[in-house]
Parts: sequence; structure tokens; C-alpha cells
Amino acid sequence: MKQNRRKFIASTALLGTCLAATALPDFNAADKKGIIHHVFFWLKNPSSQEDLKKLLSGLQTLRKIKTVRKLYIGVPASTEKRDVVDNSYHASELMFFDDLAGQQAYQDDPIHKKFVENCSQLWQKVIVYDSMDV
Amino acid sequence: MKQNRRKFIASTALLGTCLAATALPDFNAADKKGIIHHVFFWLKNPSSQEDLKKLLSGLQTLRKIKTVRKLYIGVPASTEKRDVVDNSYHASELMFFDDLAGQQAYQDDPIHKKFVENCSQLWQKVIVYDSMDV
Repeated sequence: MKQNRRKFIASTALLGTCLAATALPDFNAADKKGIIHHVFFWLKNPSSQEDLKKLLSGLQTLRKIKTVRKLYIGVPASTEKRDVVDNSYHASELMFFDDLAGQQAYQDDPIHKKFVENCSQLWQKVIVYDSMDV
Repeated sequence: MKQNRRKFIASTALLGTCLAATALPDFNAADKKGIIHHVFFWLKNPSSQEDLKKLLSGLQTLRKIKTVRKLYIGVPASTEKRDVVDNSYHASELMFFDDLAGQQAYQDDPIHKKFVENCSQLWQKVIVYDSMDV
């Protein structure tokens, strides 16, 4: 009995440390939440500054797409090297959309299609992460 | 001679398609650029909604760290399934910092250390991408 009570207190305390500071996010408001679209590119010719410039400039054209609310174009930052940090990519494209429809409209937009047509020969690998604000 | 000229025209045209729309980014202004820190978490117990809630709530505590300019906490969005899209992660933390020093201060902040201490038992894998605005 005593042991069970101790276990209960211990697990409640652990829960507390991870839940203490704030209220839980509103999981029912998913349809109102923004979409974050983050794409990482690995170049076919990693040492070519010219290819990197072409890719970064191609990414700039995506600003014109109406449903793109924010666009950040980047390269790996010189933060501390750690096992969990992947700094092997060459360019990053981070976009914000109001909703899923906005993200789909971007995918279908002629400006996006033209970017892929003109620049896809530059990259060997792409990873996309789409997340929804909670 | 004619062939060389043709090659030159062809390569210039290709360059044009990818460089046409905008000026090149200012690569010399790196120290003034913001840092984007994006972390993806894979849970040890992927089916546990309780563990996901604990992790998301733990992430909310990071808002209090002074050098964190913006924080977006997310889960995979239900965008179209494509080979390039990785939607296998369970939670995403996207942060903006003014500079490298701000990112390092965040890593060293007691609130961040407490989050790792309290919540790291929840995840089996983490990938971090740090990028610098161009």
C-alpha cells in the first residue's frame, strides 16, 4: 500500500515537471492553425558556389506566390557541432502558409513548377517536413 | 568556334532561368543574419498521446528563454504524401534567434537544460537543423 502510494507520488511528480509551466495546447483548433513547410536541399555538386547561388536565387522567385505568407531562405549555420545536428545540407527553404489549402495552392502554382523545372537538376536530394502549429 | 559560342549561349540561358528574377543574396552580411533552429522529435512510444502532450507542454516552457525571438511548436501536417516528405516525426520545435550568440545562450539556459532533463526520456531520436538567413 505504502509502495503504491510512493509510486503514485513519484509518477505524479514526474508528470508535473513536464506539464507544470503552461496549459495544454488546444488540440481541437487544428483547422485554424498555420502550416510550416521546411525543405532541405543537398546539391549534386556540393563544392559549386555557382550552383548554390543559382539554387538560392531560384528559391527567391517563390516569394511571388500569393499563398506564401513568409519565406526564409538559408544555408547551414555555424552552430556547435553535435551528433544530433545535421549540417550536411546546402540550402534551406522555410515557408509559412495560412492553411493546408494555401500549401496545396503553392505546390500547384506555375511559379513553383517553373522553379522545379529550372532548378531540380541542381540537387541530388530533398527532404520536406510539413508541420501544423499546435 | 561556332560550337563554343553555342555552348556559351546555352549555358548563359540556363543561368538566366535560375537567376533572372532577383538580385543575389548578400553573402557578406552573414553576421547580421538571423538563426533558425528546427528540431524534430521521434517519440519512444509513438502511439502514446500522453507522451506527446508531455513533450509539447515541455516545449512550451522554452518560450521563457530570453534569446528565443519566436517559437513554433508543431505536429506533422496532413499535406499530400510524397516520397520527399518525411512525416514520421511526432513533434517539431522551430525557433528564431537574432544571432549565433543567442542560439548558444539558449543551449546553455537552465530552462533548456531542465526541459532536456525532464523530457528526454520521452524521445528516441532527435534531428536538429540550424540555418542562417541569406
